[in-house]
Amino acid sequence: MRPLAGDPAFLPAHVLSMEIGARRLSPVDLVDALLERIRAGDPKLHAFVEVYAEDARLAAEAADKAIRSGHAIGPLHGIPIALKDLIQIEGKVTTGGSEVWRDRQSRCTATLARRLIATGLIVIGKTHTVEFAMGGWGTNQHRGTPWNPWDPTAARTPGGSSSGSGVAVAAGFAPWAIGTDTGGSVRLPASWCGLTGLKTTIGRISTYGILPLSPTLDTPGPMARSVEDAALLYQVMQGPDASDPRTRGVSTSDPLPMLRRGVRGLRLARMPEAEREAVDREVLAAYDAALETLARLGAELVTSDLPCRFVDYTALTARIIGAEGYSLIGDLVDDMSLPIDEAVRPRIAVGRGISARDYLAALRDREEAKRQFSTAFADVDALLTPTTQTAAIPLDTVDQTTTPAHFTRFVNFLDLCALALPNGFTAAGLPISLQIVCRGYDETTALRIGWAYQQASDWHERRPPDIV
Amino acid sequence: MRPLAGDPAFLPAHVLSMEIGARRLSPVDLVDALLERIRAGDPKLHAFVEVYAEDARLAAEAADKAIRSGHAIGPLHGIPIALKDLIQIEGKVTTGGSEVWRDRQSRCTATLARRLIATGLIVIGKTHTVEFAMGGWGTNQHRGTPWNPWDPTAARTPGGSSSGSGVAVAAGFAPWAIGTDTGGSVRLPASWCGLTGLKTTIGRISTYGILPLSPTLDTPGPMARSVEDAALLYQVMQGPDASDPRTRGVSTSDPLPMLRRGVRGLRLARMPEAEREAVDREVLAAYDAALETLARLGAELVTSDLPCRFVDYTALTARIIGAEGYSLIGDLVDDMSLPIDEAVRPRIAVGRGISARDYLAALRDREEAKRQFSTAFADVDALLTPTTQTAAIPLDTVDQTTTPAHFTRFVNFLDLCALALPNGFTAAGLPISLQIVCRGYDETTALRIGWAYQQASDWHERRPPDIV
Repeated sequence: MRPLAGDPAFLPAHVLSMEIGARRLSPVDLVDALLERIRAGDPKLHAFVEVYAEDARLAAEAADKAIRSGHAIGPLHGIPIALKDLIQIEGKVTTGGSEVWRDRQSRCTATLARRLIATGLIVIGKTHTVEFAMGGWGTNQHRGTPWNPWDPTAARTPGGSSSGSGVAVAAGFAPWAIGTDTGGSVRLPASWCGLTGLKTTIGRISTYGILPLSPTLDTPGPMARSVEDAALLYQVMQGPDASDPRTRGVSTSDPLPMLRRGVRGLRLARMPEAEREAVDREVLAAYDAALETLARLGAELVTSDLPCRFVDYTALTARIIGAEGYSLIGDLVDDMSLPIDEAVRPRIAVGRGISARDYLAALRDREEAKRQFSTAFADVDALLTPTTQTAAIPLDTVDQTTTPAHFTRFVNFLDLCALALPNGFTAAGLPISLQIVCRGYDETTALRIGWAYQQASDWHERRPPDIV
Repeated sequence: MRPLAGDPAFLPAHVLSMEIGARRLSPVDLVDALLERIRAGDPKLHAFVEVYAEDARLAAEAADKAIRSGHAIGPLHGIPIALKDLIQIEGKVTTGGSEVWRDRQSRCTATLARRLIATGLIVIGKTHTVEFAMGGWGTNQHRGTPWNPWDPTAARTPGGSSSGSGVAVAAGFAPWAIGTDTGGSVRLPASWCGLTGLKTTIGRISTYGILPLSPTLDTPGPMARSVEDAALLYQVMQGPDASDPRTRGVSTSDPLPMLRRGVRGLRLARMPEAEREAVDREVLAAYDAALETLARLGAELVTSDLPCRFVDYTALTARIIGAEGYSLIGDLVDDMSLPIDEAVRPRIAVGRGISARDYLAALRDREEAKRQFSTAFADVDALLTPTTQTAAIPLDTVDQTTTPAHFTRFVNFLDLCALALPNGFTAAGLPISLQIVCRGYDETTALRIGWAYQQASDWHERRPPDIV
């Protein structure tokens, strides 16, 4: 029997699945290896709010026995996963990134957590998030900001709000994780931590049991080490859920058989020319190179007149998130005696001044924008942009009154889906990311393009300098 | 060949369908008879905003020829229908009951109008409504209040907001009509005009192309002369529509095969005891008699602990309608130089003071109330109430600061469905109505109970004193 193909802490999940299936790796050894890495590295990286070491060890033993006795549930049985600490598990604490909720016991289990567990996955722990998931840089004043492992010497932005999920997967603490994305919160940490992250369409995956920020825009999504992993995880989380009416009538779609179809014949739109000015030089060069690669693989690159009003959409999205967020947690934000993150408080407090009329007008503007965009989108299969305008920046240079979500929020606003995936590195060794934006409910095309791209690149296989 | 079974102006549509199918009646003769009645009677009753006499005559000739040549589309081909003047037809004027919109040309056709026309129905005209559909009494200050035909001597409330639809069908101007119901606007005129009206569940029938008042609560529904007619009309309007996302994933349900199943074994809940005090003596006696009839037909009457918080729900519904209505037409309402109905203006102006937070809190309260109610509702098949607390009242006694929607609004708030049907007459000869409330998407059960009741009663066959 050939030996294990690499350090199990850095294998993508679909490879772990094969290794476990072939009995070259036991879930117990895998969990032990990860717990050991977490013990050694997380005091510096600060990815986890809580590690379920005992439970994970026990579940791994159960998985090991199930697999050895021919009782494996399926190919993902025994693989660990980390969950953003917005996702509730009954009886566990869910902080939502807030000091105020540091002891908040959950009384239900999120539907997606239930599905992951039913698939045989092992929840290894809960990861840090920006407070109330309300921010893109990834910082957290009171609970601590995770350390971006790609720069071991200086603290840089991990990206947020699913900051801990990004850091945990990048650092080899978990093969994959679940984040949530209201304006970019899966894709921004995927971008800066060198991961593959999928922003799904509303209704694809139930949000029941996930602490809400903006019910109109919140979407859960996988953060992984490859497109194939993201597709696997996306595939098992999908499906209708009576507890989330938006999932009603959304049929499930299995992207896996489509991944290998290649990109020949697909029409990929470049971002608008004017946007190039807003993008860092190294990120832009990587973007151009990616387009060349995709053209070489057979895709047709087109200049489209998609109405990409990124700035307008960013403002309207802020209004929707502000109104909905304030309606949910305005009491906390208004109580100045509570230790709420100084950067987060004003983002939610904007909701105080929003009337029902303006809020509803923003929702109508959104519907109109969706209609216009989808008419224009009929002509192309995807729009390609950088995920972020720059690579991760030093934490001490963050201006909290700005947002790194320039290229991500419009995807939520227009109810599209998008895949962020590794697209090279800066001279300083920091990950660069490409965003593949597709029509709502067309995750399969985004994954298919991303898969083709990862066959032609190895950016996603790099690992950060070892901190353990 | 036996002669026509009665005056075609007062036959229910399913009988007209048979008569037309058997060639005892031609669509041309039917349309001519109705147009003649309208010409003679509508100057007094004021049901129609506009009568499409020429178009209807032409469509009737086409239907006649299609039927005679074996090209009938289906059983409803050639039957006229009246539409509430919120329902748009491209190129026609849609006033929404407002003087401000008296010349407003429509640039689209409502999906339901398209479906009715594709079924072979003939749109005979558009009927009056309370301005912006915002009121239950049926009055309209600037466009005129339709006259309730059940009292030819004194002006009484027709019920609203679908006032003209109610009067048109009651007076023999059209065999049936479409209304819309946001808080009772199909059922209140059905109650006071002696008709059968169905409040459908959100998503059952597309609202695309209908002028909105409260997109969260607006539902279209049939107003007819029998349960069978209401079921026929409901059946053809259903179905998914890409232009109304709420119809997505709602499967169509054909109630017709179920109508004759009877009520044996069904559990029907009485209204809460405390509510009886709020009901007029004659209405209450009719209600009790209806329950006895249904029990005699085999239904089981039960005293249920359904959380019927009618008053709270009425207030929360007003908040949702106010916020959404103001967001849509606040500009008009705020412009004091415009001739907006004095009774309507303040109902929409309340939306000015509603914050996004309070609006969203009302929506969340609604979801919680829906959950609680549906748990309690699992135990019974229907809740029976009077539709209105009294019969129609003299117009000059209406207090516009109150609403007659006490028993109707909770149905919209909880996203249930309900059938209003004739249930006797007061000593003064005014119609009394019974409301059968069922779970959301269970229109079939409401129609089935109503059908059984109409087999045992003839209230729905009475006609008002002839005014023509």
